[in-house]
Amino acid sequence: MTDFFKGIPQIRFEGAESDNEFVFRHYNPDEMLAGKRMEDHLRFAVAYWHSFAWPGGDPFGGQTFERPWFGDSMALARMKADVAFEMFDILQAPFFCFHDADVRPEGADFAENTRNLEEIVDYIGTKMEGSKTRLLWGTANLFSNRRFMSGAATNPDPEVFAWSAATVKTCMDATQRLGGENYVLWGGREGYETLLNTDLARESEQMGRFLSMVVDYKHKIGFKGAILIEPKPQEPSKHQYDYDVATVYGFLKRFGLENEVKVNIEQGHAILAGHSFEHEIALAASLGIFGSIDMNRNDYQSGWDTDQFPDSVPEMARAYYEILRAGGYTTGGTNFDAKIRRQSLDPEDLILAHVGAMDVCARALKAAAALLEDGGLEANRQARYAGWDTPENRALLSSDLASIEARVRAEGINPQPRSGRQERLENLWNRFV
Amino acid sequence: MTDFFKGIPQIRFEGAESDNEFVFRHYNPDEMLAGKRMEDHLRFAVAYWHSFAWPGGDPFGGQTFERPWFGDSMALARMKADVAFEMFDILQAPFFCFHDADVRPEGADFAENTRNLEEIVDYIGTKMEGSKTRLLWGTANLFSNRRFMSGAATNPDPEVFAWSAATVKTCMDATQRLGGENYVLWGGREGYETLLNTDLARESEQMGRFLSMVVDYKHKIGFKGAILIEPKPQEPSKHQYDYDVATVYGFLKRFGLENEVKVNIEQGHAILAGHSFEHEIALAASLGIFGSIDMNRNDYQSGWDTDQFPDSVPEMARAYYEILRAGGYTTGGTNFDAKIRRQSLDPEDLILAHVGAMDVCARALKAAAALLEDGGLEANRQARYAGWDTPENRALLSSDLASIEARVRAEGINPQPRSGRQERLENLWNRFV
Amino acid sequence: MTDFFKGIPQIRFEGAESDNEFVFRHYNPDEMLAGKRMEDHLRFAVAYWHSFAWPGGDPFGGQTFERPWFGDSMALARMKADVAFEMFDILQAPFFCFHDADVRPEGADFAENTRNLEEIVDYIGTKMEGSKTRLLWGTANLFSNRRFMSGAATNPDPEVFAWSAATVKTCMDATQRLGGENYVLWGGREGYETLLNTDLARESEQMGRFLSMVVDYKHKIGFKGAILIEPKPQEPSKHQYDYDVATVYGFLKRFGLENEVKVNIEQGHAILAGHSFEHEIALAASLGIFGSIDMNRNDYQSGWDTDQFPDSVPEMARAYYEILRAGGYTTGGTNFDAKIRRQSLDPEDLILAHVGAMDVCARALKAAAALLEDGGLEANRQARYAGWDTPENRALLSSDLASIEARVRAEGINPQPRSGRQERLENLWNRFV
Amino acid sequence: MTDFFKGIPQIRFEGAESDNEFVFRHYNPDEMLAGKRMEDHLRFAVAYWHSFAWPGGDPFGGQTFERPWFGDSMALARMKADVAFEMFDILQAPFFCFHDADVRPEGADFAENTRNLEEIVDYIGTKMEGSKTRLLWGTANLFSNRRFMSGAATNPDPEVFAWSAATVKTCMDATQRLGGENYVLWGGREGYETLLNTDLARESEQMGRFLSMVVDYKHKIGFKGAILIEPKPQEPSKHQYDYDVATVYGFLKRFGLENEVKVNIEQGHAILAGHSFEHEIALAASLGIFGSIDMNRNDYQSGWDTDQFPDSVPEMARAYYEILRAGGYTTGGTNFDAKIRRQSLDPEDLILAHVGAMDVCARALKAAAALLEDGGLEANRQARYAGWDTPENRALLSSDLASIEARVRAEGINPQPRSGRQERLENLWNRFV
Repeated sequence: MTDFFKGIPQIRFEGAESDNEFVFRHYNPDEMLAGKRMEDHLRFAVAYWHSFAWPGGDPFGGQTFERPWFGDSMALARMKADVAFEMFDILQAPFFCFHDADVRPEGADFAENTRNLEEIVDYIGTKMEGSKTRLLWGTANLFSNRRFMSGAATNPDPEVFAWSAATVKTCMDATQRLGGENYVLWGGREGYETLLNTDLARESEQMGRFLSMVVDYKHKIGFKGAILIEPKPQEPSKHQYDYDVATVYGFLKRFGLENEVKVNIEQGHAILAGHSFEHEIALAASLGIFGSIDMNRNDYQSGWDTDQFPDSVPEMARAYYEILRAGGYTTGGTNFDAKIRRQSLDPEDLILAHVGAMDVCARALKAAAALLEDGGLEANRQARYAGWDTPENRALLSSDLASIEARVRAEGINPQPRSGRQERLENLWNRFV
Repeated sequence: MTDFFKGIPQIRFEGAESDNEFVFRHYNPDEMLAGKRMEDHLRFAVAYWHSFAWPGGDPFGGQTFERPWFGDSMALARMKADVAFEMFDILQAPFFCFHDADVRPEGADFAENTRNLEEIVDYIGTKMEGSKTRLLWGTANLFSNRRFMSGAATNPDPEVFAWSAATVKTCMDATQRLGGENYVLWGGREGYETLLNTDLARESEQMGRFLSMVVDYKHKIGFKGAILIEPKPQEPSKHQYDYDVATVYGFLKRFGLENEVKVNIEQGHAILAGHSFEHEIALAASLGIFGSIDMNRNDYQSGWDTDQFPDSVPEMARAYYEILRAGGYTTGGTNFDAKIRRQSLDPEDLILAHVGAMDVCARALKAAAALLEDGGLEANRQARYAGWDTPENRALLSSDLASIEARVRAEGINPQPRSGRQERLENLWNRFV
Repeated sequence: MTDFFKGIPQIRFEGAESDNEFVFRHYNPDEMLAGKRMEDHLRFAVAYWHSFAWPGGDPFGGQTFERPWFGDSMALARMKADVAFEMFDILQAPFFCFHDADVRPEGADFAENTRNLEEIVDYIGTKMEGSKTRLLWGTANLFSNRRFMSGAATNPDPEVFAWSAATVKTCMDATQRLGGENYVLWGGREGYETLLNTDLARESEQMGRFLSMVVDYKHKIGFKGAILIEPKPQEPSKHQYDYDVATVYGFLKRFGLENEVKVNIEQGHAILAGHSFEHEIALAASLGIFGSIDMNRNDYQSGWDTDQFPDSVPEMARAYYEILRAGGYTTGGTNFDAKIRRQSLDPEDLILAHVGAMDVCARALKAAAALLEDGGLEANRQARYAGWDTPENRALLSSDLASIEARVRAEGINPQPRSGRQERLENLWNRFV
Repeated sequence: MTDFFKGIPQIRFEGAESDNEFVFRHYNPDEMLAGKRMEDHLRFAVAYWHSFAWPGGDPFGGQTFERPWFGDSMALARMKADVAFEMFDILQAPFFCFHDADVRPEGADFAENTRNLEEIVDYIGTKMEGSKTRLLWGTANLFSNRRFMSGAATNPDPEVFAWSAATVKTCMDATQRLGGENYVLWGGREGYETLLNTDLARESEQMGRFLSMVVDYKHKIGFKGAILIEPKPQEPSKHQYDYDVATVYGFLKRFGLENEVKVNIEQGHAILAGHSFEHEIALAASLGIFGSIDMNRNDYQSGWDTDQFPDSVPEMARAYYEILRAGGYTTGGTNFDAKIRRQSLDPEDLILAHVGAMDVCARALKAAAALLEDGGLEANRQARYAGWDTPENRALLSSDLASIEARVRAEGINPQPRSGRQERLENLWNRFV
């Protein structure tokens, strides 16, 4: 036991009326909801990187956190894992997620990186034996080291492509070894700074091939989890190829991977791309590629990724409503890819940020489930399209322009608009949220 | 002859040193450039709607223009066509574009709309016989009338779908009749105001079927032009389905239409979607769906479509560079989907806005052609990816993760970053622009 | 009695459990809260323009609403007033707001405009005698008519300045006549489309003089209400001079009007300017110029003014918290400068949009009041700055650089950062919201 | 002599036709233009921080540059200065700028920081004796170290206020010692992350007092340069108090400092605040507070500060046009607060980025000067406001509402709009740019 969280109790459900800071007011893991335990609906995951590896820097300032495990040795990596599992235990977190670079020190070459990774993965595996916390997903950090500055799979230098492919293999192995339920790819450097030096066609081809190899390797090793791409439009790159859900879908279709790969959607990335979070979820569900979410918010007035803990029940309820409509998670979950503010220096801040976020997620889920059970919103949606239910109107979709024109003329079709009832639906929404 | 443009001479090329406002300084139609006449490179088109049908309103104010042809009769529609062709003649415009609603008055029903359209199309056809100006593209306005308020192809009401399909048929007929080189679809209402009342999956299916019928009808009537979709992310809708080039590509792939339909890209729509104009062009070219452009700019500080005449040679040079790299236009062209400011009341403003825009396009094209001929930029691009030219490295793309890992280990691959040279390439660019 | 709202009952408070659409669930006018009736805290106002004068158009489409009172006669203006007061009665709205152009038809000249205004103001005055609804504020529409296309007070044409000044006089007279509690100026055209034709210094001087005359006239006629400026950064203009609260403050200081004029802050305008709504309120309060609010939201993904009815309790609670901290409204109120969506065609939509908005405001107010009463947030704020409470530290503010340097050296001052506790405060917030 | 720039020649003017990468094509220091040498118009400055202290990191990746002088000793600080002056010499840069933290290693306490600073300032002073390069401005870095995480002047902790005040004193001393022509304050942490823990009124008061002390100290030590505030709306903070020029003006007026302090305007900061660069310059000039500029651009598609070297002649010409109209710089200059991209690893990249930027500035200045000399734009501006030149119309500005109304009635004033001629002015512009 480290003493980093000394004095902080395990967080338990006490109900909305408690005025204890260190309890759940709304998140009650065993509470049944729409046929499942709340924990099984929400599938919360803690992100290793922001909570344990991020020093608190931003583009205009350096480290603010002073953590005893910061540094570059295997011993410190083990201390970091100890602290992480202490936090998972305090929160009773069902899942966590990690990049290779979060858990192991950087080595001098690929072989040392891999040795470091394997050793610390073994250590984490041992810790997991004594913990309820499982691995939601693993991933490779192919963006921080300077070797990736011009891309990983899309690098103009084939050696970087090779290094990246080899690294993903080791991370998929590690994810498999730890029983991970998904493997994620986020291409922070798969994009460009300037079109002047970029060959879009070539880089896209490289990326398609890379992803195909990832899918092949998944099947080869019998990994049962899902392969997920995390869309983001930009930052750090000026333009990133996995811009948003629709872009990723087109990419998957192009390389025949739309049945093999799903998406991990983040609120912050959605709004950077000009979409609402719920849009991205609903779109992915309608295309059959919804996988998982990163439940962290961006500030609406900031044009970069702020990765804040979520705090708005109505916004999150929109997201969970779409997830429930789509049938809920299969392998996915609610990952907090969220960092406490760089001014939040204390261990308590780290714990309570998660506690608050889990509570607002629970409230949002309950509201979404109640609204779905009420059925009013779905009944209205169905009624709005009910005109399509007649055989004659359904037939329009398999007709042709000339025949339709003839029908319009023959029947004197002259459509009259009907109210879209947006405000009434918003009122209905607010009865539950 | 109307006397709307009385006293304004036909615009002729005089060269950069002229201080006459009513001349071309840079646009010299017959000047040869990269093997083609400048006119044949640029293929300028005037947009009927902004120049002749827009009254000057904005969301906070009404009509500012007072045009003798404003009103709702066939006689006024003919006067409008007369003025339009007088302007085409003054500008020596090689092309124009129109929606049905620009050229004919709205009728009481579909039949009257069609009669009005056919009659005015005949009138325009006659005018074209005495003019050099040809039709770049036709299109149907499926967004202004209140019947389209909830969408056209994606409307919850099948009668609107039917009306829209019938209308597109008449507009394709009109485009064919006038020798149009393309037919365009812009889905300003194909999207939603709120997800609460929207069925994304159903609307997408409707839209896919609609587009397939358009393609079928094209083949049925032997229309030789291209079918073009014009992407736009939003406005008037909160979200529009044809968000950007990547989204349209995914949609085309989904419905098997990627070899049948191309895109008409607008600068203003590109930047509303978070992209540079040149990005959208380069992306479309790399995906094989580049068709045509709308060369009008948005204000970078305004979050809505300002549709201004272009004025920045460097920005337009980026666009033309990508167009030239992609081989230039086939059926496409440079359409000015641009409106003079609502304070620009005078006939001279309308003429000179086009003259200035044609001149900056000409400068941009010349710069782009010179840079491409110089070859420095392309040589640098090729050198940057040259590592992929060896057989061993090319083989990486058809390898697998485990083999690549073995190679990385065996060869001790440890990639070293190389400069991306962005500023040097920007300097090179500025030698030509 | 018109029959526009036939069948719609007066809205009464029934409580959160009601499942009747036509009731208040949370807005209970007589409920006491922090020492005042809820109605007296919230001071709701209905905006005449969006509800009764807007035809449903947007930049890409025309009228969608078909209202029996649309048209340009005094008889129709009276019918519009009848319907308006029927709606005020249904909602039991304590206030309304209007522009001259909302209530009277446009005349052929200034004299006719004024006659029309006076006549309809008399009519409205009579209606108010039989109604509980009072006038929150009046204003002049100096932006819709084409004469204002280049500005009102800031127009390059002195005749427009004169027309505008004369018009504001008549609107101040009307506001006074109807017992209005404020007079508002929104300068939608006080800005520019292009700097190329604009003299910033001159236009600013015109605007300062204009506002000074408004203040003088207020005193001359003994108007007891507040003069309010409504900041907005842009739209319809590319740049508007009353950009945001800070800009208006600087303008008032420049012309010595900071004790005479306050601000009317709108959520949608705040976020267009890159600020949160609560920021603008808190800033205005800290500068002593907080007046009133327009409680309508913009869509975060749309770059223009969407003027939607509010629907997010947490966001509005932030606003009301700042208003309560500042002591609540004096002459100001909560105006719904909100329009139903153009697809919301039915009379019920108009009523229920207001009902829903009033309910979410009530919830937000209650949450804010409870949090303020709890005191936790304010106690934390005070504790954070407590270091300044010692005389020695307070003295720093009246010291000088050299003396402070000497003290830093002498005392070896070496400050240590302390947690800002943001997430803990967000958790506290969410206990009340 | 270090050998960092080995093989790179001093850059000399060769003219536009040269195809040598290492020359000026347009920047010809001694060329006369509007009565002054080009060097004296442009007053270029190199920024120490980006060029010599920035390691190439971004929020998702670490150091990419490997510079022999990176590290924390006085010896390395001297090597850094050696390299800097070698670059100044290669570029023949007339000016440079620096923060304390750029030039000296961080010490253990205030005293050591000051000793380090004084020692390196002496070293720099010696180097300046053998160089043509002078100091445009000095400044204190009050944002990178973790002690400033919650603000400097606006910190809740008075010890940070004291430390900051003492530090600014030492930096003003250093600036004075090196003959600096300005002293700049940029408040990257003077703002907030969340209103929940912030007392706006108190922080603003602290900031006002701080700035007053800076002004007092300037006079005390007889510093002849200007005190400049650099506006920025956000990043790193969610909200920064020096949001934009208008906000800074209001702040200065509030504390009676509007004749003592001017602004240093950056293109990137302007557009983050929703303004064009030329707007901010024109506004500052009209308010009498224009000081200096940071001539670096942000990417229009990125919502954060990209600090790129400028590359667009038309945009920069707009800026220089406003500067020339305002009479040119007095103590200010054109500082490149610009960083080469993190992929631009080579010493050549650093030199050529500056060379290219100086050339585009020179082109922009020449275009602006020619346009101003032509006089067409200014003649049009004057004509547009000419109606105000009559005594009767001038009198409107000192009249009152009632008298103006009487005049409107008496004269039947009914203003008619006139064209704003925007496109014609854009055409005129493009004849010179």
